[in-house]
Amino acid sequence: MMSIRVRPLLALGGASVVALATVASPAPGQAQEVVAEQRTQYQQIRAVEVAGDLEQPWGLAFLPDGSQLVTERPGRLLHIADGERTQVSGLPQVSSRNQGGLLDVVLHPDFEENGWVYLTYSKADEAGQETVPALVRARLDGHALVDLEHLFESNTYTSPGRHYGSRILFLEDGTLLMTIGDRGAQPERAQDPMDHSGSVVRLNADGTVPADNPFVGDDSVADEIWSWGHRNIQGIVLHPGTGEVWATEHGPRGGDELNLIRPGHNYGWPTVSLGRDYRTQEPWSDRREHGAEMTPPVWEFLPTLAPSGLAVVPADAFASTWDHNLLAGGLASQRIQRIVLEEGEVVHMEEILPFDLGRIRDVRTGPDNHIWVLTGENEGGLYRLEPVG
Amino acid sequence: MMSIRVRPLLALGGASVVALATVASPAPGQAQEVVAEQRTQYQQIRAVEVAGDLEQPWGLAFLPDGSQLVTERPGRLLHIADGERTQVSGLPQVSSRNQGGLLDVVLHPDFEENGWVYLTYSKADEAGQETVPALVRARLDGHALVDLEHLFESNTYTSPGRHYGSRILFLEDGTLLMTIGDRGAQPERAQDPMDHSGSVVRLNADGTVPADNPFVGDDSVADEIWSWGHRNIQGIVLHPGTGEVWATEHGPRGGDELNLIRPGHNYGWPTVSLGRDYRTQEPWSDRREHGAEMTPPVWEFLPTLAPSGLAVVPADAFASTWDHNLLAGGLASQRIQRIVLEEGEVVHMEEILPFDLGRIRDVRTGPDNHIWVLTGENEGGLYRLEPVG
Repeated sequence: MMSIRVRPLLALGGASVVALATVASPAPGQAQEVVAEQRTQYQQIRAVEVAGDLEQPWGLAFLPDGSQLVTERPGRLLHIADGERTQVSGLPQVSSRNQGGLLDVVLHPDFEENGWVYLTYSKADEAGQETVPALVRARLDGHALVDLEHLFESNTYTSPGRHYGSRILFLEDGTLLMTIGDRGAQPERAQDPMDHSGSVVRLNADGTVPADNPFVGDDSVADEIWSWGHRNIQGIVLHPGTGEVWATEHGPRGGDELNLIRPGHNYGWPTVSLGRDYRTQEPWSDRREHGAEMTPPVWEFLPTLAPSGLAVVPADAFASTWDHNLLAGGLASQRIQRIVLEEGEVVHMEEILPFDLGRIRDVRTGPDNHIWVLTGENEGGLYRLEPVG
Repeated sequence: MMSIRVRPLLALGGASVVALATVASPAPGQAQEVVAEQRTQYQQIRAVEVAGDLEQPWGLAFLPDGSQLVTERPGRLLHIADGERTQVSGLPQVSSRNQGGLLDVVLHPDFEENGWVYLTYSKADEAGQETVPALVRARLDGHALVDLEHLFESNTYTSPGRHYGSRILFLEDGTLLMTIGDRGAQPERAQDPMDHSGSVVRLNADGTVPADNPFVGDDSVADEIWSWGHRNIQGIVLHPGTGEVWATEHGPRGGDELNLIRPGHNYGWPTVSLGRDYRTQEPWSDRREHGAEMTPPVWEFLPTLAPSGLAVVPADAFASTWDHNLLAGGLASQRIQRIVLEEGEVVHMEEILPFDLGRIRDVRTGPDNHIWVLTGENEGGLYRLEPVG
């Protein structure tokens, strides 16, 4: 299952050191293997493989007992308990071409009472040609989804199937945010606040529009819009210390951003960007300054991160210097960036497990206060990052 | 000589791919092995090992015939021709404790006429306890240095032996710059312009002070000072397109900087820094804004680069998108950062050969228009980066 790669390394220096060992007392049915260790700046960590052979895993959530729900993009929802996986039935009809498929999974904050599981996916039109990011919820009953409810879909069907966004985040008031990518073909739609493409929308848990959304009553902006001018947000998290919403956003080459998401703000894409055209390396936009009407990113990642899942380190779980740091996964960069914030500014970063786990797709905090990571494409895996010592 | 490391990698993605092959027509006496290949964003490249088994190599220069001079920090100067090495005699007395030793090597721009080789090194006081960065020149006669001349030494002997700086750069007017680190023990000396520590000094090729240095005649600043407020510059290069001097500077953790060096400017260390204390992760300084009297960096590297040698890609040697990009080596980061500048701003970066060659100590442009790299500590190597296809 693992591809083994031999590379000449003349000096190990600060790079992560790979160890292959078996954790004491592995969970039943699963040899939990330590696949990488790293002596980071303030914390020795190790990555334990919890499950392998995942096909394009995308989203990760935890049931109250600590077992996991994992989406596979081709259209499967897996329940993983002690490394043993069971497929969950009752999904909506998923269109899994290109970047589309079954995407994020999040539990309702009161899941233990109501059993609601929220899922995003790419939904095709009747001809099966054009798609939208869509949001459903259903109750989890054993290994079946029941009472499936269609809650929301973006208001513009688009081809090809790129830039879905589709992360879900519940806020403390019980509403949820869903990120919607610009869909790729016509980036300028991210500047049209009547078009959901390239935005963050805010919904009630039943899919209705909260009355206090920033543009309710404004006929020039869709009611669901919370913020817009985004290219493709694939990491979003609530900071437990500040209540702020942080998001990582795919820019064009060199334009990946860390944004602090505020209601009613326009984040500038594609009018303003540091990014460059993938083919020509020409700047995407002549404009690099956001001006008064657009909100600049807090950070632009150079080199490229190709950001995916975003988590916050819980307090008292790792070295205290890690408390409430952001952990931003990267696809092309194949690492997790540890980001230290102070007063809304990025003041430090460190690379976690560069190249050790492959492409990082999702990063979440588990109920065990460890950091959980989904990786890879066709041979994906689920890993748990633990402090050592 | 090579340590082989097996690491599990579940998806190769954009990471560099290692190939082990032999280049056609290797130079006599040397099997030149391709030790790494990378498909970068605009250019396929490979790294060819020219020489291995170097002991703490530090500086690299090219003779007119394309053969190389390499300093080894313990106090050896090697001439390497077609991979065959010969030790050069006639060095000054080098103190090689801690970060000290034989450091940079640069040829006079008119070397073919005058034979002058410039070397920096750590020079001990008579008791052998405290040291300064010092500059000498000597003529190269076969494999001997002759006519050794002591040109300059920093005006403050210091213990312990850290933060020497010691890069040499000839400017187009025939003067040279030498970087001097803050020496570690009392960083605030970098703010004292009477103290050479933590500065860039400018000298004539014979070691005298140019009459047009910015502070000649000012009794409050040492005559040699070109710029100050530096922690430890270990990469410096003249940009052939703009005539600008660019330098990479070691900050404390998280404070590594790319600076555009201008005469008479104060770059702020240690009064202003984004960096953090290595042990506590506390900010080094409360002050993050440079204000009017200090010059901010053009870029702060996050995550840390631990910068070493700095080169500019020559025009028409690699893909045109690489023309005049900076290539900044990194020690702890074990990579070379390709940096795209536009109008004095950093607009793009890419990682070159991350972890493939180990700790990068020096990066230079060779007379063959390829990029040459010195790596490693006790088992260092000399590599040539070439375009493929």
